[in-house]
Amino acid sequence: MNHPPSDGIAYTGGRYLPLAEASIPMTDRGFVRSDATYDVAHVHQGRFFRLDDHIERFFWSMSQLRMSLPLDAAAVREILLQCVARSGLREAYVQMTCTRGVPPPGSRDPRACTNRFHAFCQPFVWIATPQQQEAGIAMVVSRVQRIPAASVDTRVKNFHWLDLTMGIFEAYDRGALVAVLVDGQGQVTEGAGFNVFAVAGGQLHTPGHNVFEGMTRRTVLELAPHLGLQARVGPVSVVALQAADEVFITSTAGGVMPVTRLDGHAVGSGRPGPVTRAVQSAYWQRAASDPRCTAVDYTAFEAGACA
Amino acid sequence: MNHPPSDGIAYTGGRYLPLAEASIPMTDRGFVRSDATYDVAHVHQGRFFRLDDHIERFFWSMSQLRMSLPLDAAAVREILLQCVARSGLREAYVQMTCTRGVPPPGSRDPRACTNRFHAFCQPFVWIATPQQQEAGIAMVVSRVQRIPAASVDTRVKNFHWLDLTMGIFEAYDRGALVAVLVDGQGQVTEGAGFNVFAVAGGQLHTPGHNVFEGMTRRTVLELAPHLGLQARVGPVSVVALQAADEVFITSTAGGVMPVTRLDGHAVGSGRPGPVTRAVQSAYWQRAASDPRCTAVDYTAFEAGACA
Repeated sequence: MNHPPSDGIAYTGGRYLPLAEASIPMTDRGFVRSDATYDVAHVHQGRFFRLDDHIERFFWSMSQLRMSLPLDAAAVREILLQCVARSGLREAYVQMTCTRGVPPPGSRDPRACTNRFHAFCQPFVWIATPQQQEAGIAMVVSRVQRIPAASVDTRVKNFHWLDLTMGIFEAYDRGALVAVLVDGQGQVTEGAGFNVFAVAGGQLHTPGHNVFEGMTRRTVLELAPHLGLQARVGPVSVVALQAADEVFITSTAGGVMPVTRLDGHAVGSGRPGPVTRAVQSAYWQRAASDPRCTAVDYTAFEAGACA
Repeated sequence: MNHPPSDGIAYTGGRYLPLAEASIPMTDRGFVRSDATYDVAHVHQGRFFRLDDHIERFFWSMSQLRMSLPLDAAAVREILLQCVARSGLREAYVQMTCTRGVPPPGSRDPRACTNRFHAFCQPFVWIATPQQQEAGIAMVVSRVQRIPAASVDTRVKNFHWLDLTMGIFEAYDRGALVAVLVDGQGQVTEGAGFNVFAVAGGQLHTPGHNVFEGMTRRTVLELAPHLGLQARVGPVSVVALQAADEVFITSTAGGVMPVTRLDGHAVGSGRPGPVTRAVQSAYWQRAASDPRCTAVDYTAFEAGACA
């Protein structure tokens, strides 16, 4: 098999290899018990955005699941930079994962596993393409409830996505691109890999409970004051979302994306609104020029070094 | 690498191989989104118990997740029998799995994936060993809530186990072997791979909601009338569990296992009770001699055929 590096590079078992050839042991609890945590950073114009923040959160998530690695943050950072440099990708989706590992024969004890680190980069994945974002995207409020924080700490990034995946199917069935899930009390939570913001009276509102606290969400909350916007983190009801002037979603996989249809009805004017556009533009400016950007050094691999 | 067949045999990508060499593609949604369903059957004394029931349920689970395979039930059956025959194992834990598959580059659409079938057998895994069962095991009522059916249909066997895994850690922390999880209303649900029964007034009680309807649970419910026992499927509160005369758990990975300590207190007499012993004995009798047993034909692989 011959896979160009630009299709993606992985790091697992201590070595770099084409992503298409990378795998997880069949009996790793990371697969058979979804006993894993991960984080996703992105590379834009050859630079990581908030790489250290992603890595810091990844280590926090591991500690919450009682996992540890023989790697420190600096080592993880180096591996991620190497994956991207070897791929040559200037726009990339970069994932770091820790799996519980393979239990000893006959054992069900997660403490007996050696935790494993895996990483990969691949061409950037858009929840909504730039073309879709131009018009604004259609969202539905799903009938599926998000797995509650009382069951799985939603702040620990995890692969428990069957609720989100059934939401994606529902969105497609109902002619939309994405679905946002609710809790059992009529409150909005999050969707598959994204957070939700409602804009009402020039103020930003985003749910504070039963959600993953995404990095793009965090960046938007930081940017708001610079744009003269108040931001409130707290309950957002489905009714409030339906009544919003504007709605947008945020994700490392796509940035700030305008939602212009909700459950088949126009949001506000039915076009991406001015607040959303301002936030979106400020976000990409930050992602390209923030002091927390980290340039990838591609030179060692552009001279024809092997991947 | 040299792995004896008796360590386990897998089937994936259309071929049989040592389990230790079997893997899942890094980007299969079955791993990175836990977008998968599975079922587990067991082999006792060289015979599967209720193999067709396990396979039927597996196909039902796939349909609920909108998955399909180019294999029918007979083909799956043949693969599972082959895995066990090639391993030579007379006591085995046998898993069949369907993963969503690898999305096309740049796509997040689960409909665009080709679903994949994987299976493996390995030496039988006991939740509690026969020695532990002799004395009875210690259980705790976990503080973690089971993922509710409103989020993920608990009847569709799935790998969303972080709640159950955190329950296992809690059990160990508190000096027990297993944990049972609750819902948000003080009702008992299930534990990591097992259902729970309370025995009170000579009657069996087992939760009917927010649980996986395990095959051993089903067998116990079928056996009850033959043992002169009434069985009731419905809410079981934590209080009722604490007040029970006897408690036992059921699993394909271990059968019927007596619980003799709950949250540090003795259950009933503190010894495995007569109802539990009667159910346990009837269960293993069935597992060895039921008309729904399927003998594995080991002959083709005992003549020295390759694994």
